[in-house]
Amino acid sequence: MALLTDKARGVFVISVTPFKDDGSLDLDSLDRVTDFYLSAGADGLTVLGMMGEAPKLTGGESRQVIQRVIARAQGKPVVVGVSSPGLAALTEVSHEAMAQGAAGVMIAPPMNLRTDAQILNYYRQACGFLGTDVPVVLQDFPLATTVQISDELLGRLIDELPQIVMLKHEDWPGLSKISKLREAEKKGRRRISVLCGNGGVFLPEEVARGADGAMTGFGFPEMLVQVTDLASRGDIERAQDIFDAYLPLVRYEQQPGVGLAVRKYVLAKRGAIASAAQRQPGAQLDALAQAEVERLLRRQDKRLKELG
Amino acid sequence: MALLTDKARGVFVISVTPFKDDGSLDLDSLDRVTDFYLSAGADGLTVLGMMGEAPKLTGGESRQVIQRVIARAQGKPVVVGVSSPGLAALTEVSHEAMAQGAAGVMIAPPMNLRTDAQILNYYRQACGFLGTDVPVVLQDFPLATTVQISDELLGRLIDELPQIVMLKHEDWPGLSKISKLREAEKKGRRRISVLCGNGGVFLPEEVARGADGAMTGFGFPEMLVQVTDLASRGDIERAQDIFDAYLPLVRYEQQPGVGLAVRKYVLAKRGAIASAAQRQPGAQLDALAQAEVERLLRRQDKRLKELG
Amino acid sequence: MALLTDKARGVFVISVTPFKDDGSLDLDSLDRVTDFYLSAGADGLTVLGMMGEAPKLTGGESRQVIQRVIARAQGKPVVVGVSSPGLAALTEVSHEAMAQGAAGVMIAPPMNLRTDAQILNYYRQACGFLGTDVPVVLQDFPLATTVQISDELLGRLIDELPQIVMLKHEDWPGLSKISKLREAEKKGRRRISVLCGNGGVFLPEEVARGADGAMTGFGFPEMLVQVTDLASRGDIERAQDIFDAYLPLVRYEQQPGVGLAVRKYVLAKRGAIASAAQRQPGAQLDALAQAEVERLLRRQDKRLKELG
Amino acid sequence: MALLTDKARGVFVISVTPFKDDGSLDLDSLDRVTDFYLSAGADGLTVLGMMGEAPKLTGGESRQVIQRVIARAQGKPVVVGVSSPGLAALTEVSHEAMAQGAAGVMIAPPMNLRTDAQILNYYRQACGFLGTDVPVVLQDFPLATTVQISDELLGRLIDELPQIVMLKHEDWPGLSKISKLREAEKKGRRRISVLCGNGGVFLPEEVARGADGAMTGFGFPEMLVQVTDLASRGDIERAQDIFDAYLPLVRYEQQPGVGLAVRKYVLAKRGAIASAAQRQPGAQLDALAQAEVERLLRRQDKRLKELG
Repeated sequence: MALLTDKARGVFVISVTPFKDDGSLDLDSLDRVTDFYLSAGADGLTVLGMMGEAPKLTGGESRQVIQRVIARAQGKPVVVGVSSPGLAALTEVSHEAMAQGAAGVMIAPPMNLRTDAQILNYYRQACGFLGTDVPVVLQDFPLATTVQISDELLGRLIDELPQIVMLKHEDWPGLSKISKLREAEKKGRRRISVLCGNGGVFLPEEVARGADGAMTGFGFPEMLVQVTDLASRGDIERAQDIFDAYLPLVRYEQQPGVGLAVRKYVLAKRGAIASAAQRQPGAQLDALAQAEVERLLRRQDKRLKELG
Repeated sequence: MALLTDKARGVFVISVTPFKDDGSLDLDSLDRVTDFYLSAGADGLTVLGMMGEAPKLTGGESRQVIQRVIARAQGKPVVVGVSSPGLAALTEVSHEAMAQGAAGVMIAPPMNLRTDAQILNYYRQACGFLGTDVPVVLQDFPLATTVQISDELLGRLIDELPQIVMLKHEDWPGLSKISKLREAEKKGRRRISVLCGNGGVFLPEEVARGADGAMTGFGFPEMLVQVTDLASRGDIERAQDIFDAYLPLVRYEQQPGVGLAVRKYVLAKRGAIASAAQRQPGAQLDALAQAEVERLLRRQDKRLKELG
Repeated sequence: MALLTDKARGVFVISVTPFKDDGSLDLDSLDRVTDFYLSAGADGLTVLGMMGEAPKLTGGESRQVIQRVIARAQGKPVVVGVSSPGLAALTEVSHEAMAQGAAGVMIAPPMNLRTDAQILNYYRQACGFLGTDVPVVLQDFPLATTVQISDELLGRLIDELPQIVMLKHEDWPGLSKISKLREAEKKGRRRISVLCGNGGVFLPEEVARGADGAMTGFGFPEMLVQVTDLASRGDIERAQDIFDAYLPLVRYEQQPGVGLAVRKYVLAKRGAIASAAQRQPGAQLDALAQAEVERLLRRQDKRLKELG
Repeated sequence: MALLTDKARGVFVISVTPFKDDGSLDLDSLDRVTDFYLSAGADGLTVLGMMGEAPKLTGGESRQVIQRVIARAQGKPVVVGVSSPGLAALTEVSHEAMAQGAAGVMIAPPMNLRTDAQILNYYRQACGFLGTDVPVVLQDFPLATTVQISDELLGRLIDELPQIVMLKHEDWPGLSKISKLREAEKKGRRRISVLCGNGGVFLPEEVARGADGAMTGFGFPEMLVQVTDLASRGDIERAQDIFDAYLPLVRYEQQPGVGLAVRKYVLAKRGAIASAAQRQPGAQLDALAQAEVERLLRRQDKRLKELG
């Protein structure tokens, strides 16, 4: 499989990890949801991300997920989340994943990093352990990691570590970060791919500011594909029309903790996975919340029909 | 002026604090924005909240803001944010505010609190310093304070401290917290007022689950009033229609840091304040962001006309 | 090997994990340091603790460490640190360790927990995954984890989860926590073992207040053994004499980050391990710091001789 | 009174703020403890620091403390802690303090700062608000503030903001920070004064590495004076002898939260203040802890006599 490059664009869906109701891994549903994402127009997939319940898996299960998705992905690039408290474990899983055909690995900074120097040093060490032939996606998600990467530091990371080919952008607020990055590139810094996260909640603006697409999840990944496509082609009004129709659900799914329960509920309802179960510890979608989601789905359906 | 009680309902707008371009307090604009909020249908006002740039004011300026808004508020209740690292300062400003006619004070927990026992003890001490005749709004906003209040602890606070008459609810996710609170009240716990924050981003669901309204800010406070009113009367579909029309802007305004710049930009554009300036340190709305906001405003206007 | 019980007492040394200068695991040194700890009078050992560089090991290396130390420990109880972001991985390594003869497992709460309810729920789930026959050491170390466990919550954990047989006490400040725990036990709560951490910096006071000993590391573990023994037998003055002689080094070793470099330097100097190397990322002891440690060692030696 | 300069050296004692048992400010004791500090050999005083219970005072009380101590300080420099969430309040209190004769102000970074750029920008703004004629002490205390300042960033702050004349050094671990700072100065960076905090727990090493003394508190400030003096003159062994005699109490006083209770207990016992009371919320020294302190005091007394 081809390696991830700084030319990557479009939508890489952050895949859920399906479980059966008893908490065991559901590999059949993993196949099914892989097909579902690809048929929705995904340009790639990312497994074992934060919304993939990665920390809940054993090492062996992680390997199964990686193998299974790569085998099913019809040659589309698969990025593997390898964030880990320790570099030896991170390196081991990264090398295994690359050997199996992964396109690259995604690394979020550990929660204990604070200063620019600490963060820079961490990525230096991680890249050193991995070797320069492993493409790295830098996940910039301070709401989850508490680690903040300034515009200046981001520039230093890009300048110094060429194997960082992509930014998974979910700083919050972060629109100006995209603009500043693209400006710096116009002035000579090497261009990297920027795919946006945060459930897509700022996707129209992000693509308009120069992002190459999305790397996130949502119960309706076809929205991410359409909005990215329309906004990339400059049709920002139509992109925003589509986006606005889905926005009430995007917003609802963005609730921390509950969000994954909503996403899995929708995916199960749409037949992409057999069960909405999360492995423990995981939030449940209670009856009230289900009713709220169902109401939003009905309204979304109606609004999409109005839009044509 | 009447004291705040557990019967309070409707919309208490979190007032911005207007500044001139040179950073000095703009008391004329403070009058104007007070009128603006009231004409939008506000049932009350809250000054010196987090989005009121309270920590940027000197003690003397804070007193000016309190006096001015109470004098202008046409008898509507004015809640004063008094969160402070120390109880002596908190008590001093609270007693001054109450003497000037405030309806109550709002207290967020200091960032260093962690355990249930620490949080409970803090509110015990704060209420002890204030005296039982000062109505207290408990601000539950973990995204900003990092302090998390569990359902169980919230119950203990309500049980033990009768002067807590209102919850400013902006836990995230927090829909189930409202439902659990209302369930506990049905089983015998005393009922308190629940007004919701977070820029109103879950307002339809919150009111449908039993919240009494909103205590938050937005460039279009009339939306908060209409949605609260419609949802309270059970017309959740119409409430959501109105809400959805404003949601793209609500979402945009919810970006931390940038949000207040958006809100002040809109308020200045609508003539409610003379300048969108924030006192330093404060985010600026650059040209790109202004264009994004303008685009959202045009779309919002169009959508509201479609809805009639 | 016998399981850990609430009767455990004495000193369980937190073992370092020796590496060669090239960063590879040094199993011969692991044998040697195991012998060293036991000959210093250790009543048990704890492997893969925070100061054992656990997160830097791969899964396979962790297994090697566990096996090797248990095989070498002459039947003394070996506790295995299994803290992990996910319960499946935690359970897998715990079951493997117990099958190999570990006496119990040690679990620190994940950094994202805040409320009493979250912490209680986490330990409920962890114990549920492990099964009731796996003895658990609760590591209470807020300086490292940011998770604070109140006296009240500690009581609830002990009451509800009988397999928690030991508290690794390193709350800071935490002397009163020991006293309150022992008081509650006098009033009827089941008694658990309390071994103290924090590099032993409060050991005389801790044992005098009812702790059963220490579970921590230090370049001179014989100090931990002597102080625990003397203080347990009521000879607090002699215990403190010994302690005070080592205190300048204890203090120096307690520096976060640098501390492990000091400890390994001393252990290498004493011949207990071949190299002071840490696996990356790890602090180095530079020439200035080495000179400071050497000066403290000379003074310590002199003072011990004075004491006789 | 003379302004603070980068030549400052010796011991600036962080003054406690005395309260009566009823929680009211005890200005007579404030006079007495000021005399006590000066008679112990203090070269300066710092009021309204973290251990001065500054956030518990009202604005009016803070002014009283500043005036009273400056009037009593016999012309010795008085630094005023002015850390505050907002720059307007910080500026107001700073200008008032300087007008009353303060030698300079001390500013710790607000807890919400993370990136190098944010921290740099904050100090730029603060210095801008203050004006260049107000000498600033930069308090670098990450254990309390959670803000980490790297060696590199510290250099940028010193380079860019000449009014930062002193570093209150209490990074932890931070010995290498002093050495790196002094090395950079040898290579041409302007020299600033470095006074160390952390209760003096690393004072011998700090002075030996180039610190100019201490800015911290302790029940026996004469120890800080003697150790600084001896170590500055190169008599590190005698400095460490004195230090080691006090170290068991230094260690005990260093417990977060409890530490101030210990310090005030000792100061009250020594007659420097009338009551050990802290204003609420504040830790109490219970009977067990008092007995521990008394035991340490007896041993300290004996050891000092042995040393002669």
